[in-house]
Amino acid sequence: MSRLDGFIRRLEAQRDCLNAVARLVGDRPGPVLEVGLGNGRTYDHLRTLFPGRAIYVFDRAVLAHPGCIPPADMIRLGDFRETLPKFRAEGARAVLIHADIGNGDKESSLALARDLAPTLAALLAPGGYLATDQPMEEVRLEPQPLPAGAAEGRYHFYRAAG
Amino acid sequence: MSRLDGFIRRLEAQRDCLNAVARLVGDRPGPVLEVGLGNGRTYDHLRTLFPGRAIYVFDRAVLAHPGCIPPADMIRLGDFRETLPKFRAEGARAVLIHADIGNGDKESSLALARDLAPTLAALLAPGGYLATDQPMEEVRLEPQPLPAGAAEGRYHFYRAAG
Repeated sequence: MSRLDGFIRRLEAQRDCLNAVARLVGDRPGPVLEVGLGNGRTYDHLRTLFPGRAIYVFDRAVLAHPGCIPPADMIRLGDFRETLPKFRAEGARAVLIHADIGNGDKESSLALARDLAPTLAALLAPGGYLATDQPMEEVRLEPQPLPAGAAEGRYHFYRAAG
Repeated sequence: MSRLDGFIRRLEAQRDCLNAVARLVGDRPGPVLEVGLGNGRTYDHLRTLFPGRAIYVFDRAVLAHPGCIPPADMIRLGDFRETLPKFRAEGARAVLIHADIGNGDKESSLALARDLAPTLAALLAPGGYLATDQPMEEVRLEPQPLPAGAAEGRYHFYRAAG
């Protein structure tokens, strides 16, 4: 399989996970966290799926497409290892965290995932969902099967215990 | 439709076009031109589809994934407006040109497409194919329908007259 094929499969799995979460969450209260804004494509998808819901966005810098810039008061700029614990102290618990934190280097992406997994788990409301490009090993995160049709192993989907 | 949905549709249409060209071209001789290497995902797909065939790559710089770097003698670095006419003078006529030349700004991408269309047409062997992210208006380029299932308007597919 080419890298183009693999990339398409990962994006399809990501979209299918997010669409599934929108159905699962329904009108349960709580914000959505977008960890890694990037070009803003997924942020745009999240605001379509979750109209009217608070979506907090975390990244080092805002480099998104001009049409996908979040409101300034919803952006938390800086290193995820600092901004996520700080946000945890604000007290909100999320119904969904989407974390695309891979940087193209497998080892350093996995190391970041290991560092962030406990904080991400703590940021989720009981029964909240984590959709991510990295595997996360954390006892409070229960692995979920990907939605039907999504390519296994291309994306990772967890539910917070409780 | 979100930008994520639109992006996935464009990538699927791109992949479907390239796969269709590989079947249409068969063993007719001629190189493949990759205009815009980017991260190298599509280059990786092209070398999978066209094993053993010369693939010339054009870009301003080589910023691809380490696994997707073309051989040095197949790379033509510089502005497309200069490197493509120069390559034309070398005489080879391509069976396929893949041109992903959009830069995120619609007007300047369309202007680049207008500038390059005559050169791209001249670089194709009679009956050769052009798959591109930009619409091209050029009398020698006959618009082709996208392969079945591909989202119309997301990608552009032409056949050189002759």
